[in-house]
Amino acid sequence: MKMTFEDMQQFLQEHFPQGAQYGELLELADAQATMRLPVGDQHLRPGGTVSGPAMMGLADVTVYAALLSRIGPVALAVTTNLNINFLRKPRSGADIIARATMLKVGKSLGVGEVSIFSDGDPEPVAHATMTYAIPPAKQGEHK
Amino acid sequence: MKMTFEDMQQFLQEHFPQGAQYGELLELADAQATMRLPVGDQHLRPGGTVSGPAMMGLADVTVYAALLSRIGPVALAVTTNLNINFLRKPRSGADIIARATMLKVGKSLGVGEVSIFSDGDPEPVAHATMTYAIPPAKQGEHK
Amino acid sequence: MKMTFEDMQQFLQEHFPQGAQYGELLELADAQATMRLPVGDQHLRPGGTVSGPAMMGLADVTVYAALLSRIGPVALAVTTNLNINFLRKPRSGADIIARATMLKVGKSLGVGEVSIFSDGDPEPVAHATMTYAIPPAKQGEHK
Amino acid sequence: MKMTFEDMQQFLQEHFPQGAQYGELLELADAQATMRLPVGDQHLRPGGTVSGPAMMGLADVTVYAALLSRIGPVALAVTTNLNINFLRKPRSGADIIARATMLKVGKSLGVGEVSIFSDGDPEPVAHATMTYAIPPAKQGEHK
Repeated sequence: MKMTFEDMQQFLQEHFPQGAQYGELLELADAQATMRLPVGDQHLRPGGTVSGPAMMGLADVTVYAALLSRIGPVALAVTTNLNINFLRKPRSGADIIARATMLKVGKSLGVGEVSIFSDGDPEPVAHATMTYAIPPAKQGEHK
Repeated sequence: MKMTFEDMQQFLQEHFPQGAQYGELLELADAQATMRLPVGDQHLRPGGTVSGPAMMGLADVTVYAALLSRIGPVALAVTTNLNINFLRKPRSGADIIARATMLKVGKSLGVGEVSIFSDGDPEPVAHATMTYAIPPAKQGEHK
Repeated sequence: MKMTFEDMQQFLQEHFPQGAQYGELLELADAQATMRLPVGDQHLRPGGTVSGPAMMGLADVTVYAALLSRIGPVALAVTTNLNINFLRKPRSGADIIARATMLKVGKSLGVGEVSIFSDGDPEPVAHATMTYAIPPAKQGEHK
Repeated sequence: MKMTFEDMQQFLQEHFPQGAQYGELLELADAQATMRLPVGDQHLRPGGTVSGPAMMGLADVTVYAALLSRIGPVALAVTTNLNINFLRKPRSGADIIARATMLKVGKSLGVGEVSIFSDGDPEPVAHATMTYAIPPAKQGEHK
């Protein structure tokens, strides 16, 4: 594990200055991360459920944190593919929680999966897989 | 074609009251739609490029418009799957444009594809395919 | 659970008469299935590794078995979407094993995920998610 | 364009010795390819329609040909992601045709899309997008 919980919190705040728009870190382990999105009006669709883009944004940043926990703070890793299945209507008024695990962390590609839940509900509302391209390491970096 | 350009504009404004957050309609044809997202600070990642969730939100609403142009104003059609490939860095400061075409409009599922461009640039910055579940028609609806 | 292990074995043999081409059932639980593909020459790419289509075929039938364990023998359920990430080179000469779990079984759609392994190796060689359209139940069926 | 039609035919025969199992080349242009799968018993599902794995195999090799037409005969390019939507039932007894176009050919990744048709039918039976990892060029190769 290349970053502590506190390292990651600070990294996410610096690189995602919109802050809570992208969620807060709850747990971090090697190649795993859990984040919460405190749901606000800007995340809602008519009817009061969380919008797809809000879920995709949270999925993206949570897998990113899981990847960086393994390779260290490589700010330039970029998402190349995201595939998401929307499974159930999120609960109205509930925050959403994302739990991500890397399936592979290679030299040039990282692939992770993430399940998204309405806070307090055991059935996932969405599930995504994601690929990140990892830029070539400069000397001294993420060997 | 079940909706005119003006019908669709009005429908989108009613169902996406956040309005410009989701983009404006440029063109509508049978099972095809083009939309523009006027890019603002809330859509940007550090470095000035458009964020992934902003592109995914535009992709989603543009395929939705392409679908509804064929089946009429079925507000309850829901996205069940989205797969997006991020191809190039969007141009800093440029709006993004999405062009969607339905590949299939069946009784219970619609599948569409969408290419996303930086305004003024011929190479796509992203490409997505998307599936919508269409609720069973009530009597008199989208036969 | 709507089908026993023996029910499922018999169902797969009847509906996939090519038999071992699609794999053999190892375990069945509610909304979960494990299958093995005894790898033969027809499944190999030059170099001796299992081909992508062989993995996709095994993924498909394993999720199908997981779905049917929940809804019963609905032969007409059809795959509508498959997304697969190839993670590592399969081991030369080893059979492949697929473990599938449904993420959702709704009235008209089932979504599952499946990890594929080289026999004896704990790291997955591929991971897929899949959607099945479930035909409307006739009276008396899978309520 | 780095390979002629005849170069590509020969390359595919050498690298896919199972030959017609993977299809025959019909057309080749820069970053584009069209192939046909002469459908035989081994490609059929009960009921006489072409199986999903047969379509996925044809999709894969056709995008591969489209990629190599741009970068030259790089045998080690590997598929990392495939996403396929099955749209309509293929016509019983008809060959299937795949038309592929690259959306991006970068230094380390190529992304393409492919539509699959029953021969003689204008509506696609399936549509896929695919990502290939391109191994680093050795000196003198695909600059």
